[in-house]
Amino acid sequence: MPETVLYVCATCRREGDDPEGPRAGARLLDALRARAEGVRVEPVECLSVCKRPCTVAVASPGRWTYVYGDLDPAEQAGVILEGLAAYAATPDGIVPWKQRPAAFRSGVIARIPPFPPPVGTREAAE
Amino acid sequence: MPETVLYVCATCRREGDDPEGPRAGARLLDALRARAEGVRVEPVECLSVCKRPCTVAVASPGRWTYVYGDLDPAEQAGVILEGLAAYAATPDGIVPWKQRPAAFRSGVIARIPPFPPPVGTREAAE
Repeated sequence: MPETVLYVCATCRREGDDPEGPRAGARLLDALRARAEGVRVEPVECLSVCKRPCTVAVASPGRWTYVYGDLDPAEQAGVILEGLAAYAATPDGIVPWKQRPAAFRSGVIARIPPFPPPVGTREAAE
Repeated sequence: MPETVLYVCATCRREGDDPEGPRAGARLLDALRARAEGVRVEPVECLSVCKRPCTVAVASPGRWTYVYGDLDPAEQAGVILEGLAAYAATPDGIVPWKQRPAAFRSGVIARIPPFPPPVGTREAAE
């Protein structure tokens, strides 16, 4: 099974964040690390999605990369990890639309094909 | 020099597109292919950035991946390829902010760290 990495923007801020406390992104990172099993969780300083915090990206060799935003650090660590497990169970990273968590369907920011791309391949739009 | 791939969403539509003609994304793909030298240009069906057409992504082994939107198929193939050349000249894909084309500064959708990530590395936010 190829390794799956969850990148978590640790610098994302959300409206209402306590300026003295850890940022929303750092709280999401902690929540994910506390629950994650069998997935590598890595902090990143900025995924350049600053208008839709919190944000994460999931990547794996031979699979599509997905970027998600609008994630709640207090509530959604569990659902992110569920979505990740579904992703890791596919050969190409493309989970059927209806099987994706609602947070992934509404929060998708972008997806990027596997690298290197198979020559001439065009994937179904989703 | 590691290979750089430019993914171009060939299915992006823009307001005002002739419904009988090729889509904006397909026109951008053609314009890029007509000008590109030394860079692999690959069509993709949907980068999931449908609200900000046209969209492209640039990826390269060991470098950050960037996704850009709001690109004009008639006007911006040249500037995209200039931005790509600057990207390919860096070790990590991070072009200093002021050296990025304006279209890349305003149109950035997301960036994703190199895969696999160096353990414990946290990159400067840009």
